[in-house]
Amino acid sequence: MTKETIAVVGVGRMGANMARRLRDQGYRITAVYDCKTALSADLAYEIGAEAVVSLSRVTELADVILTVVTDDAAMQAIFNLLGDTGDSLLIGAKGKLFINCATVSPSVHLAVEELAHHAGAESLEACMASSITQAREGTLYLMTGGTDQAFRRAEPILKDLSVSLRHIGVTGKAAQVKALVNMVMNINTAGLAEGLGLGQSLGLDLTMLREVFSETGANSRVLVTDDEDMQNRDHACFFSAAHAAKDSGIALELARDEGLSLPLAETTKKQYDRMVAEGFGELDKSGVAELTFAGRGNH
Amino acid sequence: MTKETIAVVGVGRMGANMARRLRDQGYRITAVYDCKTALSADLAYEIGAEAVVSLSRVTELADVILTVVTDDAAMQAIFNLLGDTGDSLLIGAKGKLFINCATVSPSVHLAVEELAHHAGAESLEACMASSITQAREGTLYLMTGGTDQAFRRAEPILKDLSVSLRHIGVTGKAAQVKALVNMVMNINTAGLAEGLGLGQSLGLDLTMLREVFSETGANSRVLVTDDEDMQNRDHACFFSAAHAAKDSGIALELARDEGLSLPLAETTKKQYDRMVAEGFGELDKSGVAELTFAGRGNH
Repeated sequence: MTKETIAVVGVGRMGANMARRLRDQGYRITAVYDCKTALSADLAYEIGAEAVVSLSRVTELADVILTVVTDDAAMQAIFNLLGDTGDSLLIGAKGKLFINCATVSPSVHLAVEELAHHAGAESLEACMASSITQAREGTLYLMTGGTDQAFRRAEPILKDLSVSLRHIGVTGKAAQVKALVNMVMNINTAGLAEGLGLGQSLGLDLTMLREVFSETGANSRVLVTDDEDMQNRDHACFFSAAHAAKDSGIALELARDEGLSLPLAETTKKQYDRMVAEGFGELDKSGVAELTFAGRGNH
Repeated sequence: MTKETIAVVGVGRMGANMARRLRDQGYRITAVYDCKTALSADLAYEIGAEAVVSLSRVTELADVILTVVTDDAAMQAIFNLLGDTGDSLLIGAKGKLFINCATVSPSVHLAVEELAHHAGAESLEACMASSITQAREGTLYLMTGGTDQAFRRAEPILKDLSVSLRHIGVTGKAAQVKALVNMVMNINTAGLAEGLGLGQSLGLDLTMLREVFSETGANSRVLVTDDEDMQNRDHACFFSAAHAAKDSGIALELARDEGLSLPLAETTKKQYDRMVAEGFGELDKSGVAELTFAGRGNH
Protein backbone atom coordinates (compact mmCIF):
# COMPACT_ATOMS: atom_id res chain seq x y z
CA MET A 1 0.00 0.00 0.00
CA THR A 2 1.35 3.42 -0.90
CA LYS A 3 1.87 5.60 2.09
CA GLU A 4 -0.27 8.73 2.25
CA THR A 5 1.51 12.05 1.86
CA ILE A 6 1.74 14.15 4.95
CA ALA A 7 1.81 17.85 5.82
CA VAL A 8 2.71 19.15 9.26
CA VAL A 9 1.20 22.35 10.65
CA GLY A 10 3.03 23.72 13.66
CA VAL A 11 6.67 22.71 13.61
CA GLY A 12 7.87 23.67 17.06
CA ARG A 13 9.78 21.22 19.22
CA MET A 14 7.15 18.48 18.91
CA GLY A 15 5.87 18.94 15.37
CA ALA A 16 9.33 19.20 13.79
CA ASN A 17 10.49 15.98 15.43
CA MET A 18 7.33 14.14 14.42
CA ALA A 19 7.96 15.29 10.83
CA ARG A 20 11.56 14.04 11.02
CA ARG A 21 10.44 10.72 12.42
CA LEU A 22 7.82 10.19 9.70
CA ARG A 23 10.33 11.12 7.02
CA ASP A 24 12.70 8.52 8.47
CA GLN A 25 9.87 5.98 8.32
CA GLY A 26 9.53 6.53 4.58
CA TYR A 27 6.69 9.02 4.42
CA ARG A 28 6.79 11.91 2.03
CA ILE A 29 6.38 15.14 3.98
CA THR A 30 5.09 17.40 1.28
CA ALA A 31 4.46 20.61 3.20
CA VAL A 32 5.25 22.25 6.51
CA TYR A 33 3.60 25.35 7.96
CA ASP A 34 4.23 27.50 10.98
CA CYS A 35 3.14 31.01 11.86
CA LYS A 36 6.82 31.53 12.66
CA THR A 37 7.95 31.23 9.03
CA ALA A 38 11.62 30.90 9.94
CA LEU A 39 10.80 27.62 11.70
CA SER A 40 8.96 26.15 8.72
CA ALA A 41 11.60 27.38 6.24
CA ASP A 42 14.42 25.71 8.19
CA LEU A 43 12.59 22.42 8.58
CA ALA A 44 11.43 22.40 4.95
CA TYR A 45 15.03 22.78 3.83
CA GLU A 46 16.15 20.00 6.18
CA ILE A 47 13.59 17.39 5.18
CA GLY A 48 12.89 18.36 1.59
CA ALA A 49 9.35 19.63 2.08
CA GLU A 50 7.70 22.80 0.79
CA ALA A 51 7.48 25.62 3.33
CA VAL A 52 4.00 26.93 2.83
CA VAL A 53 2.50 30.21 3.99
CA SER A 54 -1.09 29.56 2.90
CA LEU A 55 -3.22 27.10 4.85
CA SER A 56 -5.29 25.98 1.88
CA ARG A 57 -2.05 25.21 0.04
CA VAL A 58 -1.07 22.88 2.91
CA THR A 59 -4.24 20.90 2.42
CA GLU A 60 -3.78 20.87 -1.33
CA LEU A 61 -0.32 19.30 -1.01
CA ALA A 62 -1.05 16.35 1.31
CA ASP A 63 -3.46 13.48 1.98
CA VAL A 64 -3.05 13.72 5.71
CA ILE A 65 -2.52 16.94 7.67
CA LEU A 66 -0.94 16.60 11.08
CA THR A 67 -1.59 19.65 13.24
CA VAL A 68 0.67 20.23 16.26
CA VAL A 69 -0.11 23.77 17.32
CA THR A 70 0.08 25.54 20.66
CA ASP A 71 -3.38 26.26 21.98
CA ASP A 72 -7.08 26.82 21.34
CA ALA A 73 -6.48 30.13 19.57
CA ALA A 74 -3.99 28.53 17.15
CA MET A 75 -6.46 25.72 16.37
CA GLN A 76 -9.19 28.29 15.78
CA ALA A 77 -6.88 30.16 13.42
CA ILE A 78 -5.76 27.26 11.23
CA PHE A 79 -9.29 25.87 10.84
CA ASN A 80 -10.85 29.36 10.73
CA LEU A 81 -13.28 28.29 13.45
CA LEU A 82 -14.32 31.88 14.14
CA GLY A 83 -14.89 32.58 10.43
CA ASP A 84 -12.71 35.68 10.63
CA THR A 85 -10.02 34.88 8.05
CA GLY A 86 -10.05 34.10 4.36
CA ASP A 87 -7.68 31.16 4.71
CA SER A 88 -8.25 27.73 6.33
CA LEU A 89 -7.01 24.16 6.26
CA LEU A 90 -10.59 23.21 5.45
CA ILE A 91 -10.58 24.83 2.00
CA GLY A 92 -10.50 22.05 -0.60
CA ALA A 93 -10.37 19.47 2.17
CA LYS A 94 -12.62 16.82 0.65
CA GLY A 95 -11.18 13.36 1.29
CA LYS A 96 -8.38 14.63 3.53
CA LEU A 97 -7.65 13.45 7.05
CA PHE A 98 -6.71 15.87 9.82
CA ILE A 99 -4.86 14.44 12.81
CA ASN A 100 -4.84 17.01 15.60
CA CYS A 101 -2.13 16.49 18.19
CA ALA A 102 -2.17 19.71 20.20
CA THR A 103 -3.39 19.70 23.77
CA VAL A 104 -6.44 21.92 23.41
CA SER A 105 -9.93 22.06 24.86
CA PRO A 106 -12.17 19.07 24.06
CA SER A 107 -14.76 21.52 22.69
CA VAL A 108 -12.27 22.76 20.09
CA HIS A 109 -11.68 19.20 18.87
CA LEU A 110 -15.44 18.79 18.53
CA ALA A 111 -15.80 22.02 16.57
CA VAL A 112 -12.97 21.01 14.22
CA GLU A 113 -14.52 17.60 13.64
CA GLU A 114 -17.89 19.09 12.80
CA LEU A 115 -16.48 21.53 10.25
CA ALA A 116 -14.21 18.84 8.79
CA HIS A 117 -17.22 16.59 8.21
CA HIS A 118 -19.01 19.51 6.53
CA ALA A 119 -16.01 19.86 4.23
CA GLY A 120 -16.08 16.14 3.39
CA ALA A 121 -12.93 15.50 5.41
CA GLU A 122 -12.10 13.33 8.39
CA SER A 123 -10.73 14.48 11.70
CA LEU A 124 -9.10 12.68 14.60
CA GLU A 125 -7.78 14.01 17.88
CA ALA A 126 -4.48 12.37 18.81
CA CYS A 127 -3.31 13.55 22.20
CA MET A 128 0.31 13.03 23.15
CA ALA A 129 1.41 12.25 26.66
CA SER A 130 5.14 12.39 26.09
CA SER A 131 7.85 14.77 25.11
CA ILE A 132 10.39 15.79 22.49
CA THR A 133 12.72 12.78 22.60
CA GLN A 134 9.75 10.44 22.18
CA ALA A 135 8.51 12.49 19.22
CA ARG A 136 11.87 12.15 17.50
CA GLU A 137 12.19 8.44 18.22
CA GLY A 138 8.61 7.49 17.37
CA THR A 139 7.92 6.35 20.92
CA LEU A 140 5.06 8.70 21.78
CA TYR A 141 2.21 7.75 24.09
CA LEU A 142 -0.86 8.52 22.00
CA MET A 143 -4.55 8.65 22.87
CA THR A 144 -7.10 9.22 20.17
CA GLY A 145 -10.69 10.40 19.99
CA GLY A 146 -12.91 10.28 16.94
CA THR A 147 -14.79 7.95 14.62
CA ASP A 148 -13.55 4.41 14.10
CA GLN A 149 -13.15 5.21 10.41
CA ALA A 150 -10.84 8.15 11.08
CA PHE A 151 -8.91 6.07 13.60
CA ARG A 152 -8.37 3.20 11.15
CA ARG A 153 -7.11 5.54 8.45
CA ALA A 154 -4.73 7.29 10.86
CA GLU A 155 -3.56 4.11 12.55
CA PRO A 156 -0.54 3.22 10.37
CA ILE A 157 0.87 6.74 10.70
CA LEU A 158 0.20 6.90 14.43
CA LYS A 159 1.80 3.51 14.96
CA ASP A 160 4.95 4.81 13.32
CA LEU A 161 4.98 7.66 15.82
CA SER A 162 4.15 5.81 19.00
CA VAL A 163 5.02 3.05 21.38
CA SER A 164 1.52 3.04 22.81
CA LEU A 165 -1.64 3.88 20.92
CA ARG A 166 -4.99 3.87 22.69
CA HIS A 167 -8.31 4.77 21.08
CA ILE A 168 -10.27 6.32 23.95
CA GLY A 169 -13.63 7.07 22.37
CA VAL A 170 -15.45 9.79 20.50
CA THR A 171 -13.87 13.13 19.74
CA GLY A 172 -13.19 15.15 22.88
CA LYS A 173 -12.66 12.16 25.16
CA ALA A 174 -8.95 11.81 24.49
CA ALA A 175 -8.48 15.52 25.11
CA GLN A 176 -10.32 15.13 28.41
CA VAL A 177 -8.03 12.30 29.50
CA LYS A 178 -4.99 14.25 28.36
CA ALA A 179 -6.10 17.31 30.34
CA LEU A 180 -6.50 15.12 33.44
CA VAL A 181 -3.07 13.54 32.98
CA ASN A 182 -1.41 16.94 32.75
CA MET A 183 -3.47 18.38 35.58
CA VAL A 184 -2.30 15.60 37.93
CA MET A 185 1.26 15.74 36.59
CA ASN A 186 1.40 19.50 37.18
CA ILE A 187 0.13 19.10 40.75
CA ASN A 188 2.77 16.46 41.44
CA THR A 189 5.46 18.68 39.91
CA ALA A 190 4.53 21.76 41.92
CA GLY A 191 4.30 19.61 45.06
CA LEU A 192 7.71 18.05 44.47
CA ALA A 193 9.24 21.50 44.07
CA GLU A 194 7.87 22.41 47.50
CA GLY A 195 9.31 19.27 49.10
CA LEU A 196 12.77 19.78 47.61
CA GLY A 197 12.72 23.53 48.28
CA LEU A 198 11.93 23.02 51.95
CA GLY A 199 14.52 20.25 52.11
CA GLN A 200 17.18 22.64 50.87
CA SER A 201 16.20 25.31 53.39
CA LEU A 202 16.50 22.71 56.15
CA GLY A 203 20.03 21.90 55.02
CA LEU A 204 19.17 18.34 53.99
CA ASP A 205 21.26 16.58 51.35
CA LEU A 206 18.93 16.83 48.34
CA THR A 207 20.41 13.78 46.63
CA MET A 208 19.60 11.75 49.76
CA LEU A 209 16.16 13.33 49.96
CA ARG A 210 15.35 12.48 46.32
CA GLU A 211 16.45 8.92 47.00
CA VAL A 212 14.18 8.67 50.05
CA PHE A 213 11.28 10.17 48.09
CA SER A 214 11.83 7.57 45.36
CA GLU A 215 11.62 4.72 47.90
CA THR A 216 8.51 5.95 49.74
CA GLY A 217 4.99 7.27 49.32
CA ALA A 218 6.43 10.47 47.84
CA ASN A 219 7.52 8.68 44.68
CA SER A 220 6.13 9.77 41.32
CA ARG A 221 6.92 9.89 37.64
CA VAL A 222 7.84 13.58 37.89
CA LEU A 223 10.32 12.64 40.60
CA VAL A 224 12.13 10.64 37.90
CA THR A 225 11.86 13.31 35.22
CA ASP A 226 12.21 16.56 37.15
CA ASP A 227 13.90 16.09 40.52
CA GLU A 228 17.50 16.44 39.39
CA ASP A 229 16.61 19.41 37.19
CA MET A 230 14.98 21.12 40.16
CA GLN A 231 18.05 20.52 42.29
CA ASN A 232 20.46 21.72 39.58
CA ARG A 233 18.24 24.53 38.21
CA ASP A 234 18.42 22.92 34.77
CA HIS A 235 15.15 24.13 33.28
CA ALA A 236 15.87 23.66 29.57
CA CYS A 237 12.42 23.25 28.14
CA PHE A 238 10.78 19.92 27.44
CA PHE A 239 7.31 20.94 28.57
CA SER A 240 7.02 24.63 29.27
CA ALA A 241 5.51 26.28 32.31
CA ALA A 242 3.23 28.18 29.96
CA HIS A 243 1.92 24.88 28.58
CA ALA A 244 1.46 23.57 32.11
CA ALA A 245 -0.63 26.64 32.97
CA LYS A 246 -2.69 26.17 29.82
CA ASP A 247 -3.35 22.46 30.40
CA SER A 248 -4.30 22.88 34.04
CA GLY A 249 -6.60 25.67 32.81
CA ILE A 250 -8.31 23.30 30.36
CA ALA A 251 -8.95 20.81 33.16
CA LEU A 252 -10.24 23.51 35.48
CA GLU A 253 -12.67 24.70 32.85
CA LEU A 254 -14.00 21.14 32.51
CA ALA A 255 -14.33 21.03 36.30
CA ARG A 256 -16.21 24.32 36.34
CA ASP A 257 -18.62 22.98 33.73
CA GLU A 258 -19.19 19.96 35.99
CA GLY A 259 -19.63 22.11 39.09
CA LEU A 260 -16.56 20.59 40.78
CA SER A 261 -14.13 22.48 42.98
CA LEU A 262 -10.51 21.29 42.63
CA PRO A 263 -8.37 23.30 45.05
CA LEU A 264 -5.06 21.55 44.31
CA ALA A 265 -5.43 22.03 40.57
CA GLU A 266 -6.35 25.68 41.13
CA THR A 267 -3.36 26.32 43.37
CA THR A 268 -1.10 24.63 40.82
CA LYS A 269 -2.48 26.72 37.98
CA LYS A 270 -1.75 29.85 40.02
CA GLN A 271 1.88 28.75 40.48
CA TYR A 272 2.33 28.27 36.73
CA ASP A 273 0.49 31.52 35.99
CA ARG A 274 2.90 33.21 38.40
CA MET A 275 5.85 31.72 36.50
CA VAL A 276 4.46 33.17 33.27
CA ALA A 277 3.85 36.54 34.95
CA GLU A 278 7.39 36.61 36.34
CA GLY A 279 8.87 35.88 32.92
CA PHE A 280 9.60 32.16 33.43
CA GLY A 281 6.87 30.87 31.12
CA GLU A 282 9.33 29.36 28.66
CA LEU A 283 11.27 27.44 31.30
CA ASP A 284 10.51 23.76 31.66
CA LYS A 285 7.76 22.90 34.12
CA SER A 286 10.52 21.87 36.57
CA GLY A 287 11.23 25.61 36.79
CA VAL A 288 8.38 25.87 39.28
CA ALA A 289 11.21 25.12 41.73
CA GLU A 290 12.36 28.69 41.12
CA LEU A 291 9.27 29.77 43.07
CA THR A 292 9.80 27.46 46.05
CA PHE A 293 13.55 27.38 46.67
CA ALA A 294 14.82 30.18 48.90
CA GLY A 295 17.03 32.66 47.07
CA ARG A 296 15.92 31.64 43.58
CA GLY A 297 13.72 33.25 40.96
CA ASN A 298 12.99 36.92 41.36
CA HIS A 299 13.38 36.94 45.13
CA MET B 1 24.47 -11.96 72.66
CA THR B 2 21.35 -11.84 74.81
CA LYS B 3 18.63 -9.77 73.25
CA GLU B 4 17.60 -6.68 75.17
CA THR B 5 14.13 -6.71 76.70
CA ILE B 6 11.63 -4.39 75.06
CA ALA B 7 8.61 -2.35 76.13
CA VAL B 8 6.21 -0.75 73.68
CA VAL B 9 4.41 2.52 74.45
CA GLY B 10 1.50 3.24 72.16
CA VAL B 11 0.00 0.04 70.82
CA GLY B 12 -2.35 1.26 68.12
CA ARG B 13 -2.26 -0.23 64.63
CA MET B 14 1.48 0.34 64.19
CA GLY B 15 2.83 -0.23 67.70
CA ALA B 16 0.91 -3.45 68.30
CA ASN B 17 2.16 -4.99 65.08
CA MET B 18 5.74 -3.97 65.78
CA ALA B 19 5.42 -5.65 69.18
CA ARG B 20 4.07 -8.83 67.53
CA ARG B 21 6.87 -8.83 65.01
CA LEU B 22 9.57 -8.42 67.67
CA ARG B 23 8.01 -11.19 69.76
CA ASP B 24 8.11 -13.43 66.67
CA GLN B 25 11.80 -12.55 66.24
CA GLY B 26 12.56 -13.85 69.71
CA TYR B 27 12.52 -10.69 71.78
CA ARG B 28 10.92 -10.62 75.19
CA ILE B 29 8.27 -7.88 75.23
CA THR B 30 8.08 -7.21 78.94
CA ALA B 31 5.59 -4.34 79.04
CA VAL B 32 3.04 -2.58 76.89
CA TYR B 33 1.40 0.77 77.61
CA ASP B 34 -1.37 2.76 75.98
CA CYS B 35 -3.54 5.60 77.24
CA LYS B 36 -6.41 3.48 75.91
CA THR B 37 -5.97 0.74 78.54
CA ALA B 38 -8.22 -1.71 76.70
CA LEU B 39 -5.73 -1.73 73.82
CA SER B 40 -2.74 -2.50 76.04
CA ALA B 41 -4.66 -5.11 78.06
CA ASP B 42 -5.66 -7.03 74.90
CA LEU B 43 -2.19 -6.96 73.44
CA ALA B 44 -0.51 -7.86 76.74
CA TYR B 45 -2.75 -10.93 76.97
CA GLU B 46 -1.98 -11.88 73.38
CA ILE B 47 1.81 -11.64 73.54
CA GLY B 48 2.44 -12.42 77.21
CA ALA B 49 3.56 -8.97 78.31
CA GLU B 50 2.57 -6.94 81.33
CA ALA B 51 -0.04 -4.26 80.66
CA VAL B 52 1.28 -1.29 82.56
CA VAL B 53 -0.53 1.89 83.58
CA SER B 54 2.45 3.74 85.05
CA LEU B 55 5.09 5.16 82.72
CA SER B 56 7.96 4.75 85.19
CA ARG B 57 7.02 1.08 85.54
CA VAL B 58 7.39 0.67 81.76
CA THR B 59 10.95 1.91 81.99
CA GLU B 60 11.65 -0.27 84.99
CA LEU B 61 10.60 -3.40 83.10
CA ALA B 62 12.65 -3.08 79.90
CA ASP B 63 16.10 -2.26 78.51
CA VAL B 64 14.72 -0.64 75.40
CA ILE B 65 11.49 1.36 75.23
CA LEU B 66 9.90 1.70 71.81
CA THR B 67 7.47 4.64 71.65
CA VAL B 68 4.89 4.68 68.86
CA VAL B 69 2.45 7.39 69.90
CA THR B 70 0.18 9.68 67.93
CA ASP B 71 1.44 13.23 68.02
CA ASP B 72 3.48 15.94 69.74
CA ALA B 73 1.10 16.12 72.70
CA ALA B 74 1.37 12.38 73.34
CA MET B 75 5.17 12.55 73.23
CA GLN B 76 5.10 15.50 75.64
CA ALA B 77 2.90 13.47 77.97
CA ILE B 78 4.91 10.23 78.10
CA PHE B 79 8.23 12.06 78.61
CA ASN B 80 6.65 14.76 80.79
CA LEU B 81 8.23 17.40 78.60
CA LEU B 82 6.04 20.15 80.01
CA GLY B 83 6.79 19.11 83.60
CA ASP B 84 3.10 18.97 84.42
CA THR B 85 2.68 15.34 85.53
CA GLY B 86 4.26 13.19 88.22
CA ASP B 87 4.87 10.26 85.91
CA SER B 88 7.36 9.91 83.05
CA LEU B 89 9.26 7.33 81.05
CA LEU B 90 12.39 9.19 82.14
CA ILE B 91 12.07 8.23 85.82
CA GLY B 92 14.76 5.66 86.61
CA ALA B 93 15.86 5.71 82.99
CA LYS B 94 19.63 5.46 83.49
CA GLY B 95 21.14 3.10 80.92
CA LYS B 96 17.91 2.68 78.98
CA LEU B 97 17.41 3.31 75.27
CA PHE B 98 14.33 5.06 73.92
CA ILE B 99 13.49 4.49 70.27
CA ASN B 100 10.85 7.01 69.20
CA CYS B 101 8.91 6.01 66.12
CA ALA B 102 6.02 8.47 66.03
CA THR B 103 5.86 11.11 63.33
CA VAL B 104 6.18 14.22 65.45
CA SER B 105 7.88 17.60 65.17
CA PRO B 106 11.69 17.53 64.92
CA SER B 107 11.83 19.90 67.90
CA VAL B 108 10.02 17.35 70.09
CA HIS B 109 12.62 14.69 69.21
CA LEU B 110 15.34 17.15 70.21
CA ALA B 111 13.67 17.92 73.53
CA VAL B 112 13.26 14.21 74.31
CA GLU B 113 16.91 13.54 73.49
CA GLU B 114 18.11 16.34 75.77
CA LEU B 115 16.05 15.15 78.74
CA ALA B 116 17.04 11.53 78.09
CA HIS B 117 20.71 12.47 78.20
CA HIS B 118 20.08 14.32 81.48
CA ALA B 119 18.56 11.11 82.84
CA GLY B 120 21.58 9.06 81.71
CA ALA B 121 19.58 7.38 78.96
CA GLU B 122 19.94 7.23 75.20
CA SER B 123 17.38 8.34 72.66
CA LEU B 124 16.97 7.73 68.94
CA GLU B 125 14.31 8.93 66.53
CA ALA B 126 13.25 6.19 64.15
CA CYS B 127 10.77 7.49 61.61
CA MET B 128 8.69 5.02 59.65
CA ALA B 129 7.67 5.56 56.06
CA SER B 130 5.42 2.57 55.68
CA SER B 131 2.22 1.14 56.99
CA ILE B 132 0.55 -1.56 59.07
CA THR B 133 1.32 -4.61 56.92
CA GLN B 134 4.99 -3.68 56.87
CA ALA B 135 4.99 -3.26 60.67
CA ARG B 136 3.61 -6.77 61.10
CA GLU B 137 5.99 -8.33 58.60
CA GLY B 138 9.12 -6.50 59.72
CA THR B 139 9.52 -4.77 56.37
CA LEU B 140 9.31 -1.17 57.49
CA TYR B 141 11.17 1.66 55.81
CA LEU B 142 13.04 3.29 58.68
CA MET B 143 15.01 6.51 58.93
CA THR B 144 16.86 7.38 62.11
CA GLY B 145 18.26 10.51 63.71
CA GLY B 146 20.49 10.61 66.77
CA THR B 147 23.99 9.82 68.00
CA ASP B 148 25.99 7.03 66.40
CA GLN B 149 26.09 5.31 69.78
CA ALA B 150 22.30 5.23 70.11
CA PHE B 151 22.00 4.07 66.51
CA ARG B 152 24.45 1.19 66.99
CA ARG B 153 22.61 -0.02 70.08
CA ALA B 154 19.22 0.17 68.36
CA GLU B 155 20.43 -1.32 65.07
CA PRO B 156 19.76 -5.05 65.73
CA ILE B 157 16.19 -4.32 66.83
CA LEU B 158 15.53 -1.93 63.97
CA LYS B 159 16.93 -4.40 61.45
CA ASP B 160 14.43 -6.96 62.69
CA LEU B 161 11.65 -4.47 62.01
CA SER B 162 12.73 -3.14 58.64
CA VAL B 163 13.62 -3.89 55.07
CA SER B 164 15.43 -0.57 54.74
CA LEU B 165 17.26 1.24 57.52
CA ARG B 166 18.88 4.60 56.85
CA HIS B 167 20.69 6.69 59.47
CA ILE B 168 20.01 10.25 58.30
CA GLY B 169 21.94 12.33 60.82
CA VAL B 170 21.52 14.02 64.17
CA THR B 171 18.25 13.97 66.06
CA GLY B 172 15.54 15.93 64.24
CA LYS B 173 16.84 15.28 60.74
CA ALA B 174 14.97 12.02 60.21
CA ALA B 175 11.76 13.67 61.38
CA GLN B 176 12.34 16.47 58.89
CA VAL B 177 12.77 13.99 56.04
CA LYS B 178 9.70 12.07 57.18
CA ALA B 179 7.62 15.25 57.29
CA LEU B 180 8.72 16.07 53.73
CA VAL B 181 7.89 12.57 52.49
CA ASN B 182 4.39 12.78 53.92
CA MET B 183 3.87 16.35 52.77
CA VAL B 184 4.64 15.36 49.16
CA MET B 185 2.65 12.12 49.46
CA ASN B 186 -0.37 14.03 50.75
CA ILE B 187 -0.18 16.52 47.90
CA ASN B 188 -0.03 13.70 45.37
CA THR B 189 -2.97 11.97 47.06
CA ALA B 190 -5.18 15.04 47.12
CA GLY B 191 -4.23 15.77 43.50
CA LEU B 192 -5.04 12.24 42.39
CA ALA B 193 -8.45 12.48 44.03
CA GLU B 194 -9.14 15.58 41.94
CA GLY B 195 -8.09 13.86 38.72
CA LEU B 196 -10.25 10.80 39.33
CA GLY B 197 -13.16 12.87 40.63
CA LEU B 198 -13.23 15.02 37.51
CA GLY B 199 -12.80 11.90 35.38
CA GLN B 200 -15.92 10.42 36.91
CA SER B 201 -17.93 13.59 36.35
CA LEU B 202 -16.87 13.56 32.69
CA GLY B 203 -18.16 10.00 32.35
CA LEU B 204 -14.73 8.52 31.71
CA ASP B 205 -14.05 4.87 32.52
CA LEU B 206 -12.06 5.22 35.75
CA THR B 207 -10.27 1.91 35.32
CA MET B 208 -9.03 3.10 31.92
CA LEU B 209 -8.12 6.50 33.38
CA ARG B 210 -6.10 4.92 36.21
CA GLU B 211 -4.29 2.82 33.63
CA VAL B 212 -3.45 5.88 31.54
CA PHE B 213 -2.29 7.75 34.64
CA SER B 214 -0.01 4.83 35.49
CA GLU B 215 1.59 4.94 32.03
CA THR B 216 2.15 8.70 31.88
CA GLY B 217 3.47 11.72 33.75
CA ALA B 218 0.56 11.39 36.20
CA ASN B 219 2.01 8.21 37.69
CA SER B 220 2.90 8.10 41.38
CA ARG B 221 3.23 5.77 44.32
CA VAL B 222 -0.14 6.89 45.68
CA LEU B 223 -1.66 5.93 42.34
CA VAL B 224 -0.62 2.36 43.15
CA THR B 225 -1.76 2.45 46.77
CA ASP B 226 -4.89 4.62 46.66
CA ASP B 227 -6.43 4.81 43.20
CA GLU B 228 -8.63 1.73 43.41
CA ASP B 229 -9.74 2.68 46.91
CA MET B 230 -10.74 6.11 45.68
CA GLN B 231 -12.75 4.61 42.85
CA ASN B 232 -14.44 2.03 45.09
CA ARG B 233 -14.79 4.29 48.16
CA ASP B 234 -12.87 1.75 50.21
CA HIS B 235 -11.37 4.02 52.87
CA ALA B 236 -10.53 1.45 55.55
CA CYS B 237 -7.74 3.13 57.44
CA PHE B 238 -4.07 2.48 56.79
CA PHE B 239 -2.95 6.08 57.20
CA SER B 240 -5.70 8.31 58.48
CA ALA B 241 -6.75 11.68 57.12
CA ALA B 242 -6.16 13.09 60.61
CA HIS B 243 -2.55 11.88 60.47
CA ALA B 244 -2.17 13.35 57.00
CA ALA B 245 -3.37 16.72 58.29
CA LYS B 246 -0.95 16.51 61.21
CA ASP B 247 2.07 15.59 59.07
CA SER B 248 1.43 18.28 56.46
CA GLY B 249 1.10 20.63 59.42
CA ILE B 250 4.54 19.65 60.75
CA ALA B 251 6.08 20.34 57.34
CA LEU B 252 4.28 23.67 57.05
CA GLU B 253 5.58 24.75 60.43
CA LEU B 254 9.11 23.93 59.31
CA ALA B 255 8.45 25.98 56.17
CA ARG B 256 7.16 28.91 58.21
CA ASP B 257 10.32 28.82 60.34
CA GLU B 258 12.34 28.98 57.12
CA GLY B 259 10.24 31.79 55.67
CA LEU B 260 9.04 29.63 52.77
CA SER B 261 5.59 29.76 51.24
CA LEU B 262 4.31 26.36 50.05
CA PRO B 263 0.89 26.88 48.49
CA LEU B 264 0.33 23.26 47.41
CA ALA B 265 1.13 21.92 50.88
CA GLU B 266 -1.15 24.53 52.43
CA THR B 267 -4.05 23.70 50.11
CA THR B 268 -3.56 20.00 50.84
CA LYS B 269 -3.56 20.59 54.59
CA LYS B 270 -6.84 22.48 54.22
CA GLN B 271 -8.37 19.50 52.41
CA TYR B 272 -7.36 17.10 55.20
CA ASP B 273 -8.45 19.59 57.85
CA ARG B 274 -11.80 19.75 56.07
CA MET B 275 -12.05 15.95 56.20
CA VAL B 276 -11.47 16.06 59.95
CA ALA B 277 -14.01 18.88 60.35
CA GLU B 278 -16.61 16.96 58.34
CA GLY B 279 -16.11 13.86 60.47
CA PHE B 280 -13.95 11.87 58.04
CA GLY B 281 -10.70 12.18 60.03
CA GLU B 282 -10.51 8.45 60.72
CA LEU B 283 -10.95 7.43 57.09
CA ASP B 284 -7.82 6.49 55.21
CA LYS B 285 -6.07 9.35 53.39
CA SER B 286 -7.64 8.01 50.16
CA GLY B 287 -10.91 9.31 51.63
CA VAL B 288 -9.98 12.76 50.37
CA ALA B 289 -11.78 11.51 47.25
CA GLU B 290 -14.99 11.98 49.23
CA LEU B 291 -14.37 15.72 48.89
CA THR B 292 -13.73 15.73 45.15
CA PHE B 293 -16.15 13.22 43.66
CA ALA B 294 -19.58 14.63 42.83
CA GLY B 295 -22.32 13.23 45.04
CA ARG B 296 -20.02 11.88 47.73
CA GLY B 297 -19.19 12.96 51.25
CA ASN B 298 -21.55 15.39 52.89
CA HIS B 299 -22.76 16.94 49.64
